[in-house]
Amino acid sequence: MSSTDPTPVRTPRLEQAITNPGSVKINVKGAFIVDDDPRSKSPVRTDGVHYEGHDIRLPHHTGVVSHVAVDIGGSLAKLVYFTRELDSPDNGGRLNFINFETGRIDLCLEFIKQLKEEHQGLNGGTKDELCVVATGGGAYKYYDKLKETLNVDIMREDEMECLITGLDFFITEIPNEIFTYSETEPMQFAEARPDVYPYLLVNIGSGVSMIKVSGPKQFERVGGTHLGGGTFWGIMSMLTGARTFDDMLAMADRGDNSGVDMLVGDIYGMDYGKIGLKSTAIASTFGKVFRLKNAAQHESDDDIQPNGTNGDTIFKHEDMSRSLLYAISNNIGQIAYLQSEKHQVKHIYFGGSFIRGHRQTMNTLSYAIRFWSKGEKQAYFLRHEGYIGAVGAFLRRKPANWGRRNSVDEHTPANGI
Amino acid sequence: MSSTDPTPVRTPRLEQAITNPGSVKINVKGAFIVDDDPRSKSPVRTDGVHYEGHDIRLPHHTGVVSHVAVDIGGSLAKLVYFTRELDSPDNGGRLNFINFETGRIDLCLEFIKQLKEEHQGLNGGTKDELCVVATGGGAYKYYDKLKETLNVDIMREDEMECLITGLDFFITEIPNEIFTYSETEPMQFAEARPDVYPYLLVNIGSGVSMIKVSGPKQFERVGGTHLGGGTFWGIMSMLTGARTFDDMLAMADRGDNSGVDMLVGDIYGMDYGKIGLKSTAIASTFGKVFRLKNAAQHESDDDIQPNGTNGDTIFKHEDMSRSLLYAISNNIGQIAYLQSEKHQVKHIYFGGSFIRGHRQTMNTLSYAIRFWSKGEKQAYFLRHEGYIGAVGAFLRRKPANWGRRNSVDEHTPANGI
Repeated sequence: MSSTDPTPVRTPRLEQAITNPGSVKINVKGAFIVDDDPRSKSPVRTDGVHYEGHDIRLPHHTGVVSHVAVDIGGSLAKLVYFTRELDSPDNGGRLNFINFETGRIDLCLEFIKQLKEEHQGLNGGTKDELCVVATGGGAYKYYDKLKETLNVDIMREDEMECLITGLDFFITEIPNEIFTYSETEPMQFAEARPDVYPYLLVNIGSGVSMIKVSGPKQFERVGGTHLGGGTFWGIMSMLTGARTFDDMLAMADRGDNSGVDMLVGDIYGMDYGKIGLKSTAIASTFGKVFRLKNAAQHESDDDIQPNGTNGDTIFKHEDMSRSLLYAISNNIGQIAYLQSEKHQVKHIYFGGSFIRGHRQTMNTLSYAIRFWSKGEKQAYFLRHEGYIGAVGAFLRRKPANWGRRNSVDEHTPANGI
Repeated sequence: MSSTDPTPVRTPRLEQAITNPGSVKINVKGAFIVDDDPRSKSPVRTDGVHYEGHDIRLPHHTGVVSHVAVDIGGSLAKLVYFTRELDSPDNGGRLNFINFETGRIDLCLEFIKQLKEEHQGLNGGTKDELCVVATGGGAYKYYDKLKETLNVDIMREDEMECLITGLDFFITEIPNEIFTYSETEPMQFAEARPDVYPYLLVNIGSGVSMIKVSGPKQFERVGGTHLGGGTFWGIMSMLTGARTFDDMLAMADRGDNSGVDMLVGDIYGMDYGKIGLKSTAIASTFGKVFRLKNAAQHESDDDIQPNGTNGDTIFKHEDMSRSLLYAISNNIGQIAYLQSEKHQVKHIYFGGSFIRGHRQTMNTLSYAIRFWSKGEKQAYFLRHEGYIGAVGAFLRRKPANWGRRNSVDEHTPANGI
């Protein structure tokens, strides 16, 4: 560890250095999220590629970083890499975040190849030095392809372990990363606390994993659900023809779920007060379709198209999107709460590319946790929610120094403002 | 109570009589489910009406029954009524089960009107005597309509209380009603047990209610989910154009969910052995759509229809149906298990019209309970799963004798063969 500065608790300045695979230390002193970068406000997107913005500046790191990390999931491959900023007044560099559709993994490999070619300029190293740390299922499925295409060392790391390493890093070392959400305060940064463990990590990608973490290396996948981001995307694209997640979320913003959902009031004509269900509560997601479609059929069979697209004429795509987004988020929230009860965990972190900083999603997850726990528990979110595993992989490959880093963790709970 | 026969435990013969609203006792001695009735094998169906079959014969009941019971839910109105069988060798009568789409409640009212007109012939009463016991949300929403159209007394009963009364009746008094499901033994009738309580009732209609029942009158709605039968019907009808639940279930029987679902093997290319996930496990419901649709678009944008129906060309309706049926059932199973853990309940009963005796649905629910509980808990089903609330309403309106009936229950746990 190169830094000898003392670390006051709850300061945004970070002190310790982290050792990377090439035994070069990454100096995270003074690390911060780059919010004034134009890329942070309007992420550049091209077909199948998504530049994230919100880079993390590492102003004091000047050494060579000879690895990139990629977390290849079912739908997206998330890449984290370091670049030097020689023209910046404080030198140093930044962590960059970018993702690719897994179905177009070739684009991702092309990008890594380019990083390798430019390695000297970006990192100050030579191109033979670069290695790739890979995690997620694709680290196995595409192992041979990665190796052959890139002609570099591929180091594989377990997905769950990377998620935990990444989340621990974000919780303890990056200021203004972890936040709670409410409609009045959409991004209230979490204060540091000495008792990080235990927590429940709910990672929402194509599917959902729920991991109970009891300590730095102590964890168990306690459950999950296959109703996740892939379900939302898949059903929405089939119902509406929308082709990007962002388009679907934009539709959800404009929609009113009561156009397709059956509310308690639709069944009762009033609240069901005896058991505390308000008339505006959702009784059945998409439950209005049965009645309205049958009514339409009863009135005129001619209006019905054979392939089921008549739904388009009665129901709005926007309403469907909002309904489904709500259903998937609320369902995950309920299961996460019940798992947190079963496993006696109070803090629940939601990560994964499904969330994308979308207000409705976070509001639903937050509300579900508050509702079911009667205000006892809270949902926490991350600004780099999609990159937890990739960052974990980036930080993980340092067996010789792993014990030393852990011992540093114990006295530096540095998240918060 | 008219019967004085002693009741051996675990005999199919039932002894006690139940008092009905008109203070006429219903003699359930020797009650049994009519399986040799042709209607039981091929239920007669007409537009918006579904004759259930599986009537319950009450061979020893000869008195007038002056009420019918209706449970009006979000999608279906379930009706239970008594008819005498004067031409049968043992006289007596039977409980009949029929349902109507709630959206066509007029058909239901027409039917009840007809029952009223024929009351003398069917029941031996006069038409002025007939009254209607109503439960479910529609008992409130359609109260005025029921009263005006039928011109009879409408007695309303709370939905949850009716569900419990109905389930208690089926558990304790109807032989061959409650069963467990497994692929090798699709209908193994449950044996009677002295400790009926506590149990969890999971009622799957348009939406799902989960009720913890601790005693004959002690219950709490502990949760539920709005991903229920209405969700399955709504999404399926929009995706495939199918218009009846039975058509959708038939499609599910022919489908292969891996056509649309992303499996663990699709992500890993193998098992994810470290956390015990097999390559055939579902990672994301409909999760394959993202990758396959984007691949299709990448290859040829011309194939894509603007309204999203291109899903039809890549994905089979049968696969979608199986996937969604599995997803909804498995999700309910997981939440039911977690609620049963939180509330320390071992026996879980699944009712509601969503199930419809469908093997895949029951198999999924059973499997989910076995899987999550590591074999500690079991799912129970009912042959009259859709009529729990209606039967409860039918039996419930007897305040003067309620206490007496409960005291009878205590010494006659009579379910089983």
